[in-house]
Amino acid sequence: MMIKYPNGEQYHPIAKAKKKSKEDISFSSANRGMSLEEDINLSNDHYLTSGILLITKRPTPIRVVKVDYSKGAKIIDAFFQKQSTTDYNGVYKGRYIDFEAKSTKNRSCFPLSNVSLHQIEHLKNVLNFGGIAFFIIEFAYHDQVYLLDASYVIDCYEHGERKSIPFATVCEKGVLIKRGYNPRLDYLPALDNLYFNK
Amino acid sequence: MMIKYPNGEQYHPIAKAKKKSKEDISFSSANRGMSLEEDINLSNDHYLTSGILLITKRPTPIRVVKVDYSKGAKIIDAFFQKQSTTDYNGVYKGRYIDFEAKSTKNRSCFPLSNVSLHQIEHLKNVLNFGGIAFFIIEFAYHDQVYLLDASYVIDCYEHGERKSIPFATVCEKGVLIKRGYNPRLDYLPALDNLYFNK
Repeated sequence: MMIKYPNGEQYHPIAKAKKKSKEDISFSSANRGMSLEEDINLSNDHYLTSGILLITKRPTPIRVVKVDYSKGAKIIDAFFQKQSTTDYNGVYKGRYIDFEAKSTKNRSCFPLSNVSLHQIEHLKNVLNFGGIAFFIIEFAYHDQVYLLDASYVIDCYEHGERKSIPFATVCEKGVLIKRGYNPRLDYLPALDNLYFNK
Repeated sequence: MMIKYPNGEQYHPIAKAKKKSKEDISFSSANRGMSLEEDINLSNDHYLTSGILLITKRPTPIRVVKVDYSKGAKIIDAFFQKQSTTDYNGVYKGRYIDFEAKSTKNRSCFPLSNVSLHQIEHLKNVLNFGGIAFFIIEFAYHDQVYLLDASYVIDCYEHGERKSIPFATVCEKGVLIKRGYNPRLDYLPALDNLYFNK
């Protein structure tokens, strides 16, 4: 099983996992306790301040039931709602970008139960209107993160026999994202590679 | 003072306001109690289901202070936060679209106190990264809604002597949006006209 790297290199992920460089180990431990979401948010901050791209995270939708105005509009009854779209969207070189980030502890596959039908419908719309749509999938066990085009996930969701995508398939169809210090998750080369022919 | 219409027609807004057609009056009364936000949301629903464009409204950010997990994750202490970006973004013909909707009761101008510095910074970023950014401004007194390019608002915000944009200037620099039944606010011709050379 070989992995496509944005720079065209290929390597064997299992061998790589077994024989980590010092750099990888330090990033890995530096990353302990950091969630995928935090990594992406910090990377987006870096891309924005570097003048590269603009991605914003949609706030978690909350249904407000009761507000106490005697205490300066304090919300005293509300509940979280499921995101009906995706977590992230923004602009790069004028193009519309939309993606969902998911982390799984599963060793062998990405379970599609992680993805809601609403999100699939939303991503289909993004593609229909000419936008760029993908998933950033973290396999926590392997300490690897991939960028996978949404059309492949949509296809598996709608026509796949299994309700999951094997790890090996994500490695093959996706592009491995390099972890680093800043940006923590450098997904820009993958974006350039897949959608901007770089 | 003349107004640019997306179809190239021009007309005098004051005369128009005085001499409303039956159609205008019925739309106007049908519109009573409907907010600009509702009009835009319904229009976006229409555009989406018609397969034209995808615009989503960002949820209002809420800072959650305390959650009662004994009652199934009920939020019991939280407060509203100011939107640091804009209310709406999405995709049309692959391009990134971002806009803020504002309504004013002011007869003679659009006060820039309605716009936060964060929003200005965000819209500047959108333009820098090649996105399309604008305001939809409702003058409630005149019952008129305009689409105005963000670069003009940014310029007035940063370099204008007055902290407002005169109504006459919005009429001149912006494009009037037609009210209707469905879509309630047909801003697509203005979008096509300003950014897609239609």
